[in-house]
Amino acid sequence: MRFSRGRNFMFRVPEGKELLGFINDFAKKNNVIIGAVSAIGSLKNPKIGYFDEDAGEYKVIELTGTYELVSLAGNISVKDGEPFAHIHVALGGSDGSLYGGHLVEGEVFVAEVFIQELLGEPLERKPQENGLTLWDAMEL
Amino acid sequence: MRFSRGRNFMFRVPEGKELLGFINDFAKKNNVIIGAVSAIGSLKNPKIGYFDEDAGEYKVIELTGTYELVSLAGNISVKDGEPFAHIHVALGGSDGSLYGGHLVEGEVFVAEVFIQELLGEPLERKPQENGLTLWDAMEL
Amino acid sequence: MRFSRGRNFMFRVPEGKELLGFINDFAKKNNVIIGAVSAIGSLKNPKIGYFDEDAGEYKVIELTGTYELVSLAGNISVKDGEPFAHIHVALGGSDGSLYGGHLVEGEVFVAEVFIQELLGEPLERKPQENGLTLWDAMEL
Repeated sequence: MRFSRGRNFMFRVPEGKELLGFINDFAKKNNVIIGAVSAIGSLKNPKIGYFDEDAGEYKVIELTGTYELVSLAGNISVKDGEPFAHIHVALGGSDGSLYGGHLVEGEVFVAEVFIQELLGEPLERKPQENGLTLWDAMEL
Repeated sequence: MRFSRGRNFMFRVPEGKELLGFINDFAKKNNVIIGAVSAIGSLKNPKIGYFDEDAGEYKVIELTGTYELVSLAGNISVKDGEPFAHIHVALGGSDGSLYGGHLVEGEVFVAEVFIQELLGEPLERKPQENGLTLWDAMEL
Repeated sequence: MRFSRGRNFMFRVPEGKELLGFINDFAKKNNVIIGAVSAIGSLKNPKIGYFDEDAGEYKVIELTGTYELVSLAGNISVKDGEPFAHIHVALGGSDGSLYGGHLVEGEVFVAEVFIQELLGEPLERKPQENGLTLWDAMEL
């Protein structure tokens, strides 16, 4: 759970790309195994998830139209042997109201992304009984 | 106000822990005196605060149920001689609607935390006339 | 799009200052050409923007009163030859409801800011046909 610092990336994702897939592809191509991700921008027709504990899966909420990407926060770690981005977003409508949750997908209108690579023992996601894939928890 | 970079921590908080207390205990145990904190995950029955300037104290809003932790942002500095985390959160309900404010407490369902330690002259919180405890302000 | 790490700044903005202008002035005074910005705090009468694609400009939403600054995320790059901060915010009302978008302006009640300088080839904003000023996009 303690890491040294690796590379720093800041870039704009091309318009029209699917954001979550782009971040995952970026991590794979650049071999970013562990990292922190943040971004701002604007997304079209984003789909966000709310984890339904009883069902053990994400309920998907489909928004239509263009939303300000007010915050994007998350991390990169290893799932099924590959870099995997876990990302949450807050999205602002034309009246300033906000929606948000787990990023399922979103078409980029604008996305300015900041990725901080971390170096060390990989954090690995493992399937849990509750339906999520999580790192081992850290006890204090 | 200028710092060099210290250690980097990324970890999952065990389910059932109270998140704000865990971050404070983590900082104390690891002697993180100054730092930046971010996280995503999911919280149960979170309590958030809105600072009521007239009353000089936080009004506490108690949410019930499980919320996506859409963003968590804040810092660690010194208050009363100990590391102290000041944290704000955005929380997403099952329909994607967001709530947020100053984190008062929240039970962890999932919390993936990133802490960047900073090294330098400690930032210290001091009681203000308005009821808050703040660092000295920086003039440009 | 790959950068090495520069200086780290964490500071409180004085009460009463306009936040976006303060961050821009800070970047100019300290010659921060590229960076990542985050903050929490509380803002008075903030104005936020939603980019109206058809009009090719921001629609400005004026909020009145004091809002928790639940998240502030963005970056510093170069526009018209000078450091320029692009910032998005989520703002919490007294009932915990959130509003947000592109930060146009906001009077500081409290603002605790974290700026991570990046070093490398400057990212430069250039006017686009759609009315925005953006960096060149990165192809994978």
